[in-house]
Amino acid sequence: VILAELDRALSPQLLKGKRVLLSAGPTREAIDAARFLSNPSSGKMGYALAAAARSLGAEVTLVSGPTALEAPYGVTRVDVVSAVQMHGEVMARASEVDVAMMVAAVADWRPSHPSDKKMPKGQMSPTLELERNPDILAELGERFGEGSETEEGARRPLVVGFAAESHDVIERARAKRARKGAHAIVANVIGGPASTFGAESATVHLLVGDEEPRTFSGTKPEVARALWEALARRLQS
Amino acid sequence: VILAELDRALSPQLLKGKRVLLSAGPTREAIDAARFLSNPSSGKMGYALAAAARSLGAEVTLVSGPTALEAPYGVTRVDVVSAVQMHGEVMARASEVDVAMMVAAVADWRPSHPSDKKMPKGQMSPTLELERNPDILAELGERFGEGSETEEGARRPLVVGFAAESHDVIERARAKRARKGAHAIVANVIGGPASTFGAESATVHLLVGDEEPRTFSGTKPEVARALWEALARRLQS
Repeated sequence: VILAELDRALSPQLLKGKRVLLSAGPTREAIDAARFLSNPSSGKMGYALAAAARSLGAEVTLVSGPTALEAPYGVTRVDVVSAVQMHGEVMARASEVDVAMMVAAVADWRPSHPSDKKMPKGQMSPTLELERNPDILAELGERFGEGSETEEGARRPLVVGFAAESHDVIERARAKRARKGAHAIVANVIGGPASTFGAESATVHLLVGDEEPRTFSGTKPEVARALWEALARRLQS
Repeated sequence: VILAELDRALSPQLLKGKRVLLSAGPTREAIDAARFLSNPSSGKMGYALAAAARSLGAEVTLVSGPTALEAPYGVTRVDVVSAVQMHGEVMARASEVDVAMMVAAVADWRPSHPSDKKMPKGQMSPTLELERNPDILAELGERFGEGSETEEGARRPLVVGFAAESHDVIERARAKRARKGAHAIVANVIGGPASTFGAESATVHLLVGDEEPRTFSGTKPEVARALWEALARRLQS
């Protein structure tokens, strides 16, 4: 608490008065009471971005999937489990913020027929039927992103997505930004030795509009701070 | 470290000279570089059992799936991700121990065709083909459990399983013990308000052979200690 307050007191208040909505962590898509689909996101990058935004003066809400992390001091956390829940909590808040930054690794698919009970092995089918989850970033992009139209005076958050790619990272992230209509994308590498999933450090590439990518490396708190400093200018304009 | 040593010094050395092999945590079954099947096991119960066994004088090896926990002091941890890896590490050690206690929530199924890369959404099939994982407890039961035959002088560990059930808990656990050939089963409730998954506390039922079930409630460290005290008598005989 004291360190967080000291950090805030000593940091330039680049995000003062700004409202930031973040998503973080994995989602879990229930198969039954004891099985789910998920991914290896630890939530560390999203939590670091929440803590950094708060240090820089923002009012921060963090919609978080299941993680082993504690909410950063001064940040409002909303806990969710599934992509459908995360979609609901994010969309309910997006029109009231200045930045909507989607860091969560949201499962693209969910089992079509989840069970409340734990199914005996013998009753499980050797094929699992899946259906698509809502695409939160694409929906934010469509409503608030590049090319969207908003009523006069309505808040229109800067829409920032994350892209976790195992190959052709920048090229694929650039395509993702355009496809989703996001204002900016942060790309990082998963799989292999440079994987950021669960790691303490990260190397990320920030793509804002059609600008050249900028690369940041360091611990996740360092990278988070650098990303906000780079984005803060966009928020002033 | 000091607390762990003090606890060991002050505890009755009920497991002195015994070798204990534990499994703990969930397993993760890769779909691709960014997606997997898993379950909500936090690993807390297995880690508490490892710490308690060490306090009571045992030499402990913990084969652990991915968790956010640190290895208890003095315990040898072997990290694995998938059920196939866990199976390999457990079977390689089982004939050299006095107790093989399988606490891990091992995924029963794994995707048949995992990919090293992250598949684009569009390339994912709406059905996921699965195949059965090895049944570690059943294999231990067959080799070392009730009714198994062992050469003269060979070590034959006490085989203890865990059953996570959402309904008919004791009845299903009793059937599981018999089916797997385990000497004992510890049953606990998942799903609903009494779920032990991820919780700090647990209520478990210990079924040893055909004896009446005994119930233990408390924090996971308390329950772990009580379970070892109940099992220690079996190990002396």
